[in-house]
Amino acid sequence: MAARTLGSCIFCKIIKGDIPSLKLIETEFSYSFLDIGPLSKGHALVIPKDHVAKMHELSDDYLADVLPIAKKIALALGVENYNILQNNGRIAHQEVDHVHFHVIPKPRASHDVGLVIGWPTQKVNMDELKKLHQELLTKL
Amino acid sequence: MAARTLGSCIFCKIIKGDIPSLKLIETEFSYSFLDIGPLSKGHALVIPKDHVAKMHELSDDYLADVLPIAKKIALALGVENYNILQNNGRIAHQEVDHVHFHVIPKPRASHDVGLVIGWPTQKVNMDELKKLHQELLTKL
Repeated sequence: MAARTLGSCIFCKIIKGDIPSLKLIETEFSYSFLDIGPLSKGHALVIPKDHVAKMHELSDDYLADVLPIAKKIALALGVENYNILQNNGRIAHQEVDHVHFHVIPKPRASHDVGLVIGWPTQKVNMDELKKLHQELLTKL
Repeated sequence: MAARTLGSCIFCKIIKGDIPSLKLIETEFSYSFLDIGPLSKGHALVIPKDHVAKMHELSDDYLADVLPIAKKIALALGVENYNILQNNGRIAHQEVDHVHFHVIPKPRASHDVGLVIGWPTQKVNMDELKKLHQELLTKL
């Protein structure tokens, strides 16, 4: 199944074994390995074995497989503080156009290690939010 | 099933309907709704119906259910640029001790809206990384 949907991007090559990696867990739907450009010790990636760029392009079989693997990695790392991150689009910090989920340990409260997060909370107009809610319900 | 594992935190109260929310999708294992303190228009949360603080404490049934819901929300929002984020631990930016996954649209490249990401890549010693890899393989 996997070979059908893989291409020639760096992650597809890693999945196929054409580029070596420090593999952790491999399943029918996913491949995981240690990031060699880590934000912290133990930074790992879980990638679906399907060459699509964005999360919303994946079928549910691939999506359902990701987090149980991320959990096993977090447990093996023995970390209590960490972030799960998946970026879609260059302006959202995606650098490789093959869906990938980061498991990023946060060993201490520091801007020098692990994921650094900025949180620009917006002022919200509840009427507008309720209108958006109604619009979304027609699409779900 | 859900009622067995819910407590009295704000997210448990939202799941039980004791606190109103702008609900999007509800399943046996998950509940999703619009965040009323959004980082961008359409910022939503997907929360497992199990009161545990950290991702690695969830059983696979709950974990497998999350991303297919996040996908449906992203598709309903019609966004191409967005982040999926789940934080574990106060120093990793977790503010409510009930696992929650953020779907955060990134409408434009700006520090004023959507998730802001800092990426402090570490210098890596390949020998140490390979040693960590070997250690992890004994635990996986």
